[in-house]
Amino acid sequence: MLTIAVDAMGGDHAPACVIDGALEALRESGNRFEIILIGQSEKVEPLLGKHDTAGLNLKFMHAPETVTMDDVPATAVKTKQNSSLVKGLQLCKAKEAEAFVSAGNTGAQMAASLFILGRIPGVLRPTIYAYLPRLQEGLTNMVDVGANMDCKPEHLVQFAEMLSIYQRYGAGIENPQVGLLNIGEEEGKGSDTLKQTHPLLKAAHAAGKINFIGNIEGHDILKGKATVVVCDGLVGNTILKFGESIPEFLGVLFKQALEKNVASGSLDQNAAAAATAMFKGMFEPFDVEKFGGVPFLGVDGISIVGHGRSSSRAIKNMIYMAEHMVERKVNEHIAEVLADK
Amino acid sequence: MLTIAVDAMGGDHAPACVIDGALEALRESGNRFEIILIGQSEKVEPLLGKHDTAGLNLKFMHAPETVTMDDVPATAVKTKQNSSLVKGLQLCKAKEAEAFVSAGNTGAQMAASLFILGRIPGVLRPTIYAYLPRLQEGLTNMVDVGANMDCKPEHLVQFAEMLSIYQRYGAGIENPQVGLLNIGEEEGKGSDTLKQTHPLLKAAHAAGKINFIGNIEGHDILKGKATVVVCDGLVGNTILKFGESIPEFLGVLFKQALEKNVASGSLDQNAAAAATAMFKGMFEPFDVEKFGGVPFLGVDGISIVGHGRSSSRAIKNMIYMAEHMVERKVNEHIAEVLADK
Repeated sequence: MLTIAVDAMGGDHAPACVIDGALEALRESGNRFEIILIGQSEKVEPLLGKHDTAGLNLKFMHAPETVTMDDVPATAVKTKQNSSLVKGLQLCKAKEAEAFVSAGNTGAQMAASLFILGRIPGVLRPTIYAYLPRLQEGLTNMVDVGANMDCKPEHLVQFAEMLSIYQRYGAGIENPQVGLLNIGEEEGKGSDTLKQTHPLLKAAHAAGKINFIGNIEGHDILKGKATVVVCDGLVGNTILKFGESIPEFLGVLFKQALEKNVASGSLDQNAAAAATAMFKGMFEPFDVEKFGGVPFLGVDGISIVGHGRSSSRAIKNMIYMAEHMVERKVNEHIAEVLADK
Repeated sequence: MLTIAVDAMGGDHAPACVIDGALEALRESGNRFEIILIGQSEKVEPLLGKHDTAGLNLKFMHAPETVTMDDVPATAVKTKQNSSLVKGLQLCKAKEAEAFVSAGNTGAQMAASLFILGRIPGVLRPTIYAYLPRLQEGLTNMVDVGANMDCKPEHLVQFAEMLSIYQRYGAGIENPQVGLLNIGEEEGKGSDTLKQTHPLLKAAHAAGKINFIGNIEGHDILKGKATVVVCDGLVGNTILKFGESIPEFLGVLFKQALEKNVASGSLDQNAAAAATAMFKGMFEPFDVEKFGGVPFLGVDGISIVGHGRSSSRAIKNMIYMAEHMVERKVNEHIAEVLADK
């Protein structure tokens, strides 16, 4: 049976929300895997005690230390050896767990994952991707979204290869479409790095490693033109955060418009309530908690990272994501493709 | 009296729309300035003949050639000497006009402006900015949005300085707030270029040239945290185009939600019509035609560029922008600040 280590202390609403998510995953899946919850016993056990966990494949492991959002990523792994983060990843390294899940400090998790698990052979730089809203079937994933600055062309090519493999094997997308995010469609456009990346992506396409559709522009992202949007971490992080801020911005605009329309009598109370419900429902494509979190691509093991504000539903879906990554052998496929240079 | 040269052939709806905008600017302003419309006489004159232009400060100048969207920017200025673009900028160079306005090929206008008008002394690279939606008073402008790739720290600093001067003198913003678009708030974050730019912006702040508020992130843009958002042209162009695509994307979501709510009976026909009107009104902050267009900052003259899809209202507002730039002596202020190194 698959064992998944879960960081009970990671996230804005931890440990309560992590416990809820873990128990829900076990119940909903019919105890399909085993979960080891890791955290400070004085915080986790009282909350666990309130639940009926009889018959669930649940273990608890005490970790006296906690990595916080303020910890410096590069040093947390060395200074907090007894944290849930480090202990969870060590379980993976020792093959006592197949995957690790956390909604804590992303930078620290990335650093610790690299330090403890290492890279898949052939990987230049592990990376992290994100989900963007999409109207059509399929997924729109963007890579890199902040783990890597000053990327070289060969880094961007590997990001495209790794994310294509994830989409193909992990998400069942038959022929992922790779777009290079640029300022224009023509091959000669963009920064020096992008100009050098374009022919390398064409070569990877010719070699059958990816399906490269060419340059795409900012307005092509929401149109779903590519399933794999490739960019430097600076661009990706900025677009991701800009995109995440849209629902709140529009919420303010909606509230103002609603008040104006109610005051003027254009909408009665019933219609206003219906319009409000409709407006909230509209943002379903912006709901990325349905994916839970994302794996660090290129790390030699499975380390799933979630948003700090993850709900129990997000935690549950991160656990499913971990299961997915193991069963579909995504890392094995990455190793195979990247070894073949 | 101020003379503004207007490219009658620039834009998706030219020349009809440009003529309408120019005439409206003269009428609305009470003939406050003179306009020289430049374009192909066989296309412009029949349309002009349909209007009553008696008493308006309007001249027409024939230009047999036209720069199209397909023309290569760098060569258009050399191969199409008799185009409205080149003739308009030459009028400015010869001091027969104080400003030039076009909604044509942006790259060609940038190249021709630089070639014909040159740079303001001290300017390393002229730049182009854009407007982003904002809820509060003031403006959110982003610079650079695609004219400059691979920017060096000193380029970014000059962009911040020039846009701050525009906002202060051209737009009446007392104390423009400069934010460096980055992946985190801390000074040490980001790409090598951004790490080097941060202390230079602090120094410019200390020297009283700008009001630097530090790093900002993608989610701070719509919050209006900065009035001047500084970034490389690759990041700015991508954010700008991504932002421009939001209304259409949400329009599809709204239409789907409306159909569902009407079908289920949650909204009757009247409420649906009111909700639709309300939704359309919500996007007022995304309407950048109220600004018309933007000047190339750093060019030694006034060359205003508009979106290809500019309406007559946008053209009219570009003409006002041109008037503004002359009267408020924005370029003189830029020359003063950049000379003072």
